[in-house]
Amino acid sequence: MQKIDFQKGDGLVPVIVQDYRSREVLMVAYMNQEAWEKTKKTGKAHYYSRSRQGLWFKGEESGHFQEVKAAFIDCDHDTLLLQVRQIGGAACHEGYRSCFFRKRANGNWKVIARRVFDPKEVYKSERIEAGNSQGKSGNRHHRAF
Amino acid sequence: MQKIDFQKGDGLVPVIVQDYRSREVLMVAYMNQEAWEKTKKTGKAHYYSRSRQGLWFKGEESGHFQEVKAAFIDCDHDTLLLQVRQIGGAACHEGYRSCFFRKRANGNWKVIARRVFDPKEVYKSERIEAGNSQGKSGNRHHRAF
Repeated sequence: MQKIDFQKGDGLVPVIVQDYRSREVLMVAYMNQEAWEKTKKTGKAHYYSRSRQGLWFKGEESGHFQEVKAAFIDCDHDTLLLQVRQIGGAACHEGYRSCFFRKRANGNWKVIARRVFDPKEVYKSERIEAGNSQGKSGNRHHRAF
Repeated sequence: MQKIDFQKGDGLVPVIVQDYRSREVLMVAYMNQEAWEKTKKTGKAHYYSRSRQGLWFKGEESGHFQEVKAAFIDCDHDTLLLQVRQIGGAACHEGYRSCFFRKRANGNWKVIARRVFDPKEVYKSERIEAGNSQGKSGNRHHRAF
């Protein structure tokens, strides 16, 4: 059995996140071993935040977490691909469905998408209580992938 | 106009490569400024090879290059997404259409795809002459993206 090679990237692997139905690429994030274990255990995507230097439960603040439908590893075992159901319809903290909302056109990057939500409305100063954001799916430990 | 932030990753940005029709994620690679300029100029994907530490014209050896149909940048300006037409039908040097040919199932990574080509047949000891692999599309400089 092949393991994830966390060593090459100093303990981190890049993770491509894709909508499980439309296959739209939603975002790229990073995982360490802990984030991967948490993701497997809960079925919801956890990452390593490089800016905050710690575990990041995607959606903890916004409620827009990601249910992992399938996980893939690349030929070099150092990159992951997740197919997810994005709760709230938007993966990007700027309120867009995908973080890749700017497209190259005529030598410039142009916004080609509309906001799904207003970041100011979703990211309040106070965090949603942990119990709240996990309430919908309960504590079931699923091994869907 | 926003520029690509090459500084955050010590001169490199990760590049997600996706089939422009099926949206299948084919591979992840890295670009430096030079690779990005070459890609823009030729319309064919060029990357930075971290193992060889130099410019990598994808398909130079195999003939399986990538015609770039569209390019996107993420909200942080430090990750690119390319939508490409993959010549030869396979992006992975192991002969699979996608590098993500192993899927998580029952606690293991299982091969879920079939080889499109036999790596031993495609990667001969001698390199295809540069003139050869570029002959098909000629020297047209297109700015499709």
